Amino acid sequence: MFVGMGLHSDRGMSLQGLDETKTAETTFVELYTSLMPELDLAKLQKLVGKRITVLSRKDLEDDCGKKLLEAAEKGKAVLLVPGDPLIATTHVDLRIRAERQGIKTRIVHGASIVSAIIGLSSLQNYKFGRSVTIPFTEEGVRADTAYNVIEENKKRGLHTLCFLDVKAEEKRYMTIAEGLRVLLTVEQQERRGVVTSNTMAVGVANAGSNQPVVKADRAKELLEYDFGTPPHSLVFLGKLHFMEAEALLVLAKAPETVKELVE
Amino acid sequence: MFVGMGLHSDRGMSLQGLDETKTAETTFVELYTSLMPELDLAKLQKLVGKRITVLSRKDLEDDCGKKLLEAAEKGKAVLLVPGDPLIATTHVDLRIRAERQGIKTRIVHGASIVSAIIGLSSLQNYKFGRSVTIPFTEEGVRADTAYNVIEENKKRGLHTLCFLDVKAEEKRYMTIAEGLRVLLTVEQQERRGVVTSNTMAVGVANAGSNQPVVKADRAKELLEYDFGTPPHSLVFLGKLHFMEAEALLVLAKAPETVKELVE
Repeated sequence: MFVGMGLHSDRGMSLQGLDETKTAETTFVELYTSLMPELDLAKLQKLVGKRITVLSRKDLEDDCGKKLLEAAEKGKAVLLVPGDPLIATTHVDLRIRAERQGIKTRIVHGASIVSAIIGLSSLQNYKFGRSVTIPFTEEGVRADTAYNVIEENKKRGLHTLCFLDVKAEEKRYMTIAEGLRVLLTVEQQERRGVVTSNTMAVGVANAGSNQPVVKADRAKELLEYDFGTPPHSLVFLGKLHFMEAEALLVLAKAPETVKELVE
Repeated sequence: MFVGMGLHSDRGMSLQGLDETKTAETTFVELYTSLMPELDLAKLQKLVGKRITVLSRKDLEDDCGKKLLEAAEKGKAVLLVPGDPLIATTHVDLRIRAERQGIKTRIVHGASIVSAIIGLSSLQNYKFGRSVTIPFTEEGVRADTAYNVIEENKKRGLHTLCFLDVKAEEKRYMTIAEGLRVLLTVEQQERRGVVTSNTMAVGVANAGSNQPVVKADRAKELLEYDFGTPPHSLVFLGKLHFMEAEALLVLAKAPETVKELVE
């Protein structure tokens, strides 16, 4: 069974998630696909009243979740996952593997960064085009795909949710400034006017905490803005409905110029 | 404060959501933007240990949330909302209004149908284009916008998440068959081959329950399939990654022909 832990802390899990974990025979957790700043393993174990085994990327990917599947063959096993489970491809792979072995799987949903960013940005759900991740790669941060996706969405008046990569096992979390800087570098090569220093975007930090930071401004201002610690995300704006502009002014401290995007 | 109740039942709320509701001076709930089949007001009141006032569409929209804002001026007020709050435009409007009156607002996120459908369909998050709702209107069900959005996404190889309208106050919940039938009618007029009886889609029913129904097949088969009671949603497929096709075969009982969509 996959149980979503929601966002930010050990209080993000749903009541059903807690019920299911309490009745599991074996409980695992993976903490590498996202950063949950206030999640602490000792606290989590106390909450569910049992020992929780941490599974690494190696356990779940290279070793194909062997430990988890073995436990699930013997009895009820729970894998605790940040956010809403099965948004990460790794978990889909694992679920296919389990079902193929005759292990019945189930999902207990949790709050996801996907809907949280939409809600926190106050933008309208149906105005988001496809989303994209700016990844850390061996050569550094790569934003060429993100640049193309932002352009494609913008042409159609749609917003783009940009996930900033998290490599939790290496304690590397991309910041808004880092993501923006690389996009601006791509702009210098491509010169298609997709992300310039005047491009309006919304930065969101610490979604799911009691003090998320949400700020809409031009890229050059966002580069200097203090968003605090990660996790960070970015939203690039398409055309705005007047109510979206209103919301960005009141709820995301946008400058008046945001109104220029209203269609 | 907006507290997401997550999906399906009163166990969908996060632990933090429950903490915050318990310490609120006044608690409201709105139940008209979504259908939560196993949510029962008496049970919910017992859970949070206090009386909860139900707010109707009229209270929140026509009367601009007056009752809620008055309570929030006097002390901590919580509005319980299905799913993840602020995905519905109504709540954004309310939040702007509150902040303008100097009332500090906060969001406690909950599981959303947006990420739940992505997870349940086993499709990849970044391959979804913009989503769309098939609404009930005064003239009946309207699917022309949905038809266009599905076409636009398909051209770019992207999936489309189709929300099927819920008018909870009138107890009207659109089914997968109903949504499909109207799309097929639009096809008969438009003839652009976007949704034909052979178009492959994924139907999802009762997301967030212990027994969600997920079935991938051609439209003509889905029309006959027993998805059980609402809420229902639909996903139209773009091009598939081989792992998505694999997942649909194993987890969504897709026919082998789904592999034809692999690019």
